[in-house]
Amino acid sequence: MSDSQTIAATSVIAGADSEQPDVAAATAAAVEAFAAYRATSPAERGAFLEAVADEIEADKDAIIVEAVRESGLPEGRITGEVGRTTGQLRMFAGVVRSGDHLGVRIDPALPDRAPLPRADIRQRMVPLGPVAVFGASNFPLAFSTAGGDTASALAAGCPVVVKGHPAHPVTGTLVARAITRAVQASGLPAGVFSFVLGGIETGQELVVDPRITAVGFTGSRGGGLALVRAAAGREVPIPVYAEMSSINPVVVLPGALDGDVDALATAYVGSLTLGAGQFCTNPGLLFLPSGEQGDAFLRAAGRAVTDAAGQPMLTPGIAEAYASGTASLRGTEGIRVVGEGSAAGDHAPAPVVYEAPAELLALDDNTVTDEVFGASGVVVRYDDVADLLPRLEQLEGQLTATVHADPASSADAAAAAALLPVLELRAGRILFNGWPTGVEVGHAMVHGGPYPATSDSRTTSVGSLAIERFQRPVAYQDVPAALQPEAVRDDNPWGLRRRIDGDLE
Amino acid sequence: MSDSQTIAATSVIAGADSEQPDVAAATAAAVEAFAAYRATSPAERGAFLEAVADEIEADKDAIIVEAVRESGLPEGRITGEVGRTTGQLRMFAGVVRSGDHLGVRIDPALPDRAPLPRADIRQRMVPLGPVAVFGASNFPLAFSTAGGDTASALAAGCPVVVKGHPAHPVTGTLVARAITRAVQASGLPAGVFSFVLGGIETGQELVVDPRITAVGFTGSRGGGLALVRAAAGREVPIPVYAEMSSINPVVVLPGALDGDVDALATAYVGSLTLGAGQFCTNPGLLFLPSGEQGDAFLRAAGRAVTDAAGQPMLTPGIAEAYASGTASLRGTEGIRVVGEGSAAGDHAPAPVVYEAPAELLALDDNTVTDEVFGASGVVVRYDDVADLLPRLEQLEGQLTATVHADPASSADAAAAAALLPVLELRAGRILFNGWPTGVEVGHAMVHGGPYPATSDSRTTSVGSLAIERFQRPVAYQDVPAALQPEAVRDDNPWGLRRRIDGDLE
Repeated sequence: MSDSQTIAATSVIAGADSEQPDVAAATAAAVEAFAAYRATSPAERGAFLEAVADEIEADKDAIIVEAVRESGLPEGRITGEVGRTTGQLRMFAGVVRSGDHLGVRIDPALPDRAPLPRADIRQRMVPLGPVAVFGASNFPLAFSTAGGDTASALAAGCPVVVKGHPAHPVTGTLVARAITRAVQASGLPAGVFSFVLGGIETGQELVVDPRITAVGFTGSRGGGLALVRAAAGREVPIPVYAEMSSINPVVVLPGALDGDVDALATAYVGSLTLGAGQFCTNPGLLFLPSGEQGDAFLRAAGRAVTDAAGQPMLTPGIAEAYASGTASLRGTEGIRVVGEGSAAGDHAPAPVVYEAPAELLALDDNTVTDEVFGASGVVVRYDDVADLLPRLEQLEGQLTATVHADPASSADAAAAAALLPVLELRAGRILFNGWPTGVEVGHAMVHGGPYPATSDSRTTSVGSLAIERFQRPVAYQDVPAALQPEAVRDDNPWGLRRRIDGDLE
Repeated sequence: MSDSQTIAATSVIAGADSEQPDVAAATAAAVEAFAAYRATSPAERGAFLEAVADEIEADKDAIIVEAVRESGLPEGRITGEVGRTTGQLRMFAGVVRSGDHLGVRIDPALPDRAPLPRADIRQRMVPLGPVAVFGASNFPLAFSTAGGDTASALAAGCPVVVKGHPAHPVTGTLVARAITRAVQASGLPAGVFSFVLGGIETGQELVVDPRITAVGFTGSRGGGLALVRAAAGREVPIPVYAEMSSINPVVVLPGALDGDVDALATAYVGSLTLGAGQFCTNPGLLFLPSGEQGDAFLRAAGRAVTDAAGQPMLTPGIAEAYASGTASLRGTEGIRVVGEGSAAGDHAPAPVVYEAPAELLALDDNTVTDEVFGASGVVVRYDDVADLLPRLEQLEGQLTATVHADPASSADAAAAAALLPVLELRAGRILFNGWPTGVEVGHAMVHGGPYPATSDSRTTSVGSLAIERFQRPVAYQDVPAALQPEAVRDDNPWGLRRRIDGDLE
């Protein structure tokens, strides 16, 4: 997503100011809480994550009212996001209870091995330490105060300091209060979770604080890179997981146009305009075959987007950035408007689909490949499937890449087989015959991808693999049984699945 | 280890110059080879790793002669290193064949789920791309051309460009030729492996090459940080795994001195002087109880080190850095020499044990805590176990931390239990009643640790977990069965253990 504007903190809930610590106090409390929190058993930590979910549900009505008011998003969407947020916490509680995230490996001693005996070596993952999480503007719940980064860091055993997004301070404060109640009810130290509000300076202060050991961020490329740069100036480097920008290319293969072209085009525009287009996975670039069937798709997409009305964007700044991005596209020679919907007020601009010549995909031209956050899509035509590969190879890293193909067409199958290895190098998730908006919270999901989709492609910010971002391995060599951590003990008190001499139990 | 000197490339094997590509040619070849190499099956890639081991063994005699000549290390040590190198390659071949490193996760479709159906989502790890590996001075085989970084990157499916260490160019060239024969015999593209020689500029050129996707380095803090800084200037950031410096603290608890103090002190000096002290895991700092038993240990250590003779260091530059580091210790007020062995020539300086006052461990003083690469050890006394915790908490990140304790002493057990959580936050490996030199290549080993022991604590550079450093996850959503990668297909042609809906098959 793109939100490089500074958003002034607006009304803050009564009394919230006094309950918010400053960054230094929050990180100090996190350090103080770390020892006790990381020592929690899987059952205790799992129960705590579930308590967080319960407390958010207890305040659900008030949270929904405030989130709708602050974000402009419809109630149905916000209600769904609450369910996603609590569901994610409960799913991570299940992973924590299983202990799979501890990745235990045991290489038993071989006292008789020649020429040298082997020591007893046992490995488990330990949490990194206090984690800074930045709330996102476009998901006031699922990617904010109790969102994916917070849930995964807490699951890993890391205390969390959230910097709430200034576009929804009241929502953030309400969720923070719910988490704080769960911390108290679980008998954990207060510093396990802190919530601070503030602008860019507050965020920078948090990232350079020597007590912070990792950062999770979802936002604009500008904002993410600023955090990466700030972190690079630290004496001790830390992982920064910034999920930044993506135009999520979609390739329509010729066979896909043999079916119901109207339905396909309508689904495209539906994905493009969903939530005012304010998704990291919004399909910003679509490759469409030249020729009559492609023309028919484009006419249908034009009709669908013309029928679409603008929806309120998250902040005036985001709406202004959308206006500026679409104006730049419109003012570029060779780009034409395929269809444009209707604005619905100052901050609810019209969705629009453009057609752009393929030449604008040249490496040194960002006109078409820079993300315009919102319901703005660019269609590029191609004559031959063979022309696609070099164009896709030139694209920057992406969160997703989508292929539409006729499963029964051998030509499409051959083309898709050639595309797949290229798309794998460009994106974290590859979809067929679907649309990239809507990210399932599962075990197999990857919401990540090569730079600049993220600052660290080795992981995901959605799904249970996200927990592993906040851990590091420690080996215990010949540590006496009585002193071994439970996870690696012979009697396996937590009933973990462990790798013994390389083989899973 | 510490080797901040520039070492001029000495004699290079006849004909080697002409066979070495420049950096740009090597990285271009690596890119060209990537598609074919990453497409290899587990069986093919495993066989290739074994072929590398076989080819190194075929040239073993010549390699040993040259490595002994270039490194000054004894033949027994070098012979052991050859075995370690080939054993590591074969072990990684086993992991690759099992496919465990692919981390496959499958969340099957739930078409009837309400309110929304779930798509079919499948995840596997893919290799990052071409990897730059820097040969280490102190392990001409096991951490150099075909060493741990190369073996793990190749196992992950990444082509490798090695910059050989200028202290052993002939050894590196011989090993490179062996790898190249394995590449050819396996029918793989030549760019799967390249070997370049050169100085600091060549290394920098490699790290900033836009085609390089990750870096593995073992060496000095200065050298590692220079590479980290160079990489930070790239447009597209990449992981840099630099294993740098460590003083590997050892804590002797009072009970450990109830046994054979002479044997304990002799074992300490043995670990300190092994290989002229040129190990990343050399025990540079030892905490010893005050009082008579501690005095007895120190006298015994003094006798043992006085009896020890110097051994040739790897390069004149390393010997000079050792001389400068020990001179600095010796010239510091309050530090006294406990015992000093005998030099055995210009570049085989005397091993030495110092005693330093605890005050020198203050945060703003690096006299005692900066690594002196070589057989130089510092002993710090403590009055009470309670004094140890703040001293250990002040230490920088370490590769290892060791505790010597009497397993039968409840006082030692209580002290060790208090130390363990602190040591876990400081080190990648914790040992009891042993010495940190000697790093087992296993599944459970961690050779890593918090900064500045490494630039990235989330991983290890020794052991099979090292393979995961060079991968990233990709999710496949609703990809038709015929187009799915083998690893995630329903018929599981590679017989992998996979996580289905979060549970291992």
